[in-house]
Amino acid sequence: MKVISLNATVTASNDRDAEALRGEMRREGVLLVNLMSAPGAGKTTLLSRLIGDMRDVRFAVMEADIESTVDAERIEALGARAVQVHTGGMCHMDAGMTARAWREVAGKDVDIAVLENVGNLICPAEYDTGAGCKAMILSVPEGDDKPLKYPLMFAESDALVISKVDALGWFDFDVEKCAARARRLNPDIRVFPLSAKTGEGMAALEDWLRARLDGWRKR
Amino acid sequence: MKVISLNATVTASNDRDAEALRGEMRREGVLLVNLMSAPGAGKTTLLSRLIGDMRDVRFAVMEADIESTVDAERIEALGARAVQVHTGGMCHMDAGMTARAWREVAGKDVDIAVLENVGNLICPAEYDTGAGCKAMILSVPEGDDKPLKYPLMFAESDALVISKVDALGWFDFDVEKCAARARRLNPDIRVFPLSAKTGEGMAALEDWLRARLDGWRKR
Repeated sequence: MKVISLNATVTASNDRDAEALRGEMRREGVLLVNLMSAPGAGKTTLLSRLIGDMRDVRFAVMEADIESTVDAERIEALGARAVQVHTGGMCHMDAGMTARAWREVAGKDVDIAVLENVGNLICPAEYDTGAGCKAMILSVPEGDDKPLKYPLMFAESDALVISKVDALGWFDFDVEKCAARARRLNPDIRVFPLSAKTGEGMAALEDWLRARLDGWRKR
Repeated sequence: MKVISLNATVTASNDRDAEALRGEMRREGVLLVNLMSAPGAGKTTLLSRLIGDMRDVRFAVMEADIESTVDAERIEALGARAVQVHTGGMCHMDAGMTARAWREVAGKDVDIAVLENVGNLICPAEYDTGAGCKAMILSVPEGDDKPLKYPLMFAESDALVISKVDALGWFDFDVEKCAARARRLNPDIRVFPLSAKTGEGMAALEDWLRARLDGWRKR
């Protein structure tokens, strides 16, 4: 498995870099998904489930972490193309870093490229990575008050995955209240309560991803 | 309840500001604890339990968040002194911000001042806030691989609280493996597996906090 170390590019040029990457991805017909969440919300587990379920879609994954290669190893074990990115201590990925990572996994046989961003509910929301679609995960154990505390992440995301719903009996978490709080920040956000462990709710997210890919290629 | 909005101070002077604040806290005999974790790990729940259990210790709490006042409201409801700090989008607290927040809750009747830092496993570890003691929380649902991915936080902390152990049956989490990974980064780190919900394991943390307060006042 390939591991690359990247440092942040100059911030002033980030928006330009992001637009350039988005244009490139559109020409190649690849939907780039920026997947964000706090540490331990289940990004890699969700991705593993999607890759296993959606055999008609070819995934490539960029795993961003400060250290370790555990996530990219999990994805490669599923037979998907993956690269581990080490961010040199950086708390987010920017567009230049994403473009460098994409070059490591790019190919004619990719439909959806997923950037699994650094586990952080704050900084990744502030940087356009060039993605065509932004999805965030909030896990049930984190609590339904998180839209109140980390509003930008919820405002910026196209989809909110509420993960680990199999643990709803164990934790105080009101799915409807959480969804309403997210929609107050972002009326268009799509909400997907699911469990990647049991499979509950996965189909709705998978249908939405397929529709996003179709839409991306038709525009 | 008081809410203050703070912006970051100049980074170059942060270490100097931190030493100044630490000296002030020592002269006042107040132990400042920098409490850090990812979003939703249970910082406020742990603090609420500590305040309820340790009636012989007088707490003052600085709640740092990007937005909302829910945490400070919870602490005030317990009768403890609290201030809500809004960080203006900032992903961490620095020493200058902490000193400003401390002025809002300072008093002769404080033994332990707790800075509940912004929910983030990355950036807060990089900034000395002037605290005399650093504690982090990792919750069971986040997974035992987090020391591999966020090493600086574990390396910098005096204590690792492994929270939500009442949910150990629900999640794959190996307490011993996690503690060993943390000790590889930080041989001196004290590990406290506990549940603030059931009270299991709280006594060991409370004894340690009392000993830290005594040690701080004797030095």
